[in-house]
Amino acid sequence: MSTPSVPPTPGTVYVIPPRSGAAFPVSKGQRLTVIDPCGSQVSDLLAFNLHDTNEVISSGRTLDYASRIFLTTPDPLYSNRSNVLLRIVADTVGTHDFLLTPCSKDTFRIIYGDTEPHRGCFGNLAAALEPFGVEEDRIPVAFNCFMNVPIDAATGELKVLPPKSKAGDHISFVAEMDLVVALTACSALQSNGGSFKPIHYRVDGTPQITNELE
Amino acid sequence: MSTPSVPPTPGTVYVIPPRSGAAFPVSKGQRLTVIDPCGSQVSDLLAFNLHDTNEVISSGRTLDYASRIFLTTPDPLYSNRSNVLLRIVADTVGTHDFLLTPCSKDTFRIIYGDTEPHRGCFGNLAAALEPFGVEEDRIPVAFNCFMNVPIDAATGELKVLPPKSKAGDHISFVAEMDLVVALTACSALQSNGGSFKPIHYRVDGTPQITNELE
Repeated sequence: MSTPSVPPTPGTVYVIPPRSGAAFPVSKGQRLTVIDPCGSQVSDLLAFNLHDTNEVISSGRTLDYASRIFLTTPDPLYSNRSNVLLRIVADTVGTHDFLLTPCSKDTFRIIYGDTEPHRGCFGNLAAALEPFGVEEDRIPVAFNCFMNVPIDAATGELKVLPPKSKAGDHISFVAEMDLVVALTACSALQSNGGSFKPIHYRVDGTPQITNELE
Repeated sequence: MSTPSVPPTPGTVYVIPPRSGAAFPVSKGQRLTVIDPCGSQVSDLLAFNLHDTNEVISSGRTLDYASRIFLTTPDPLYSNRSNVLLRIVADTVGTHDFLLTPCSKDTFRIIYGDTEPHRGCFGNLAAALEPFGVEEDRIPVAFNCFMNVPIDAATGELKVLPPKSKAGDHISFVAEMDLVVALTACSALQSNGGSFKPIHYRVDGTPQITNELE
């Protein structure tokens, strides 16, 4: 099924095609599952308070409260206002990144040297979030599901290695408030083991909200 | 001399008292030096495009382009729009943090268990930036001068240890565009080796801009 701008139908698996993105409401109490159907594919995740999109996922708050840069069950993901947006409730991979911003035209220009760069996850997120009133300057560091970014503790050097996820691996979150969630099938070759694959997602549980845009 | 809201007088050393903050314009081409006068004191640094404060320092862009989480000379600090805001041109310490958000009331509530928490660097930055039209929800991960946050590469665990800075140590930046810079003398005990000390700063070079607020 193609991507909705209305709340996803519970239990339905939605497809994000390679190098694209989607945004949708998730009600407090619902469970969001992000699935890597083919393996070795990253999905950038953003979350905003549905009722006030000035409240947004914050890597800095989350890592500070966790005292850890690698997150998994049962870690909470905090907002810039120190409220819990999402809580990780299942994780078959255990390796995700929360340091790097979504790949963008500038990423492809600066890191890859592309002359006609793809808009990347950044552009895909901006387009998907535009109907929810989120401007692209508000896109922060994403929680990058399945992204494999080891750190050298002595030098601080980071590497972007192929994801450890295998076909069918997934990570699930419970929403702790009504949210706009945005997801991508990541557009950067290095992040995805050299090829572009889709991402699947599913929302379970009864939606408490209707689309405020309608 | 007390903290200005107009451009700092070149060559003058300004004092940020313990647990407080300041914000001021810095012209393209000027050099900003942040000094730890007593040793073992952190200063959170934020930078915004003076002419459009929607453009703001970005840890995620900077770390991605550097492929490193520990920055020093001659690393550039990028904005959310992938422009260089500042370039590190001198650094007598070499250990700074760019992962964690400024300490806040919530930090003291969640990590320290304080019942009447201080407003922290976050509150100090918000107050200092308010005259420049920056709302507190726009405060991102800061470049935390002298903050010592080692990472365990295997587990991702991070520790907040006393800064390595000694009395008189400093870090200098050249502005690559006209900026609003905000600085603090950090308010969190753990970050500052257990005591609260001032921060000094100095701007050198001819100001090209006048205070747009006047």
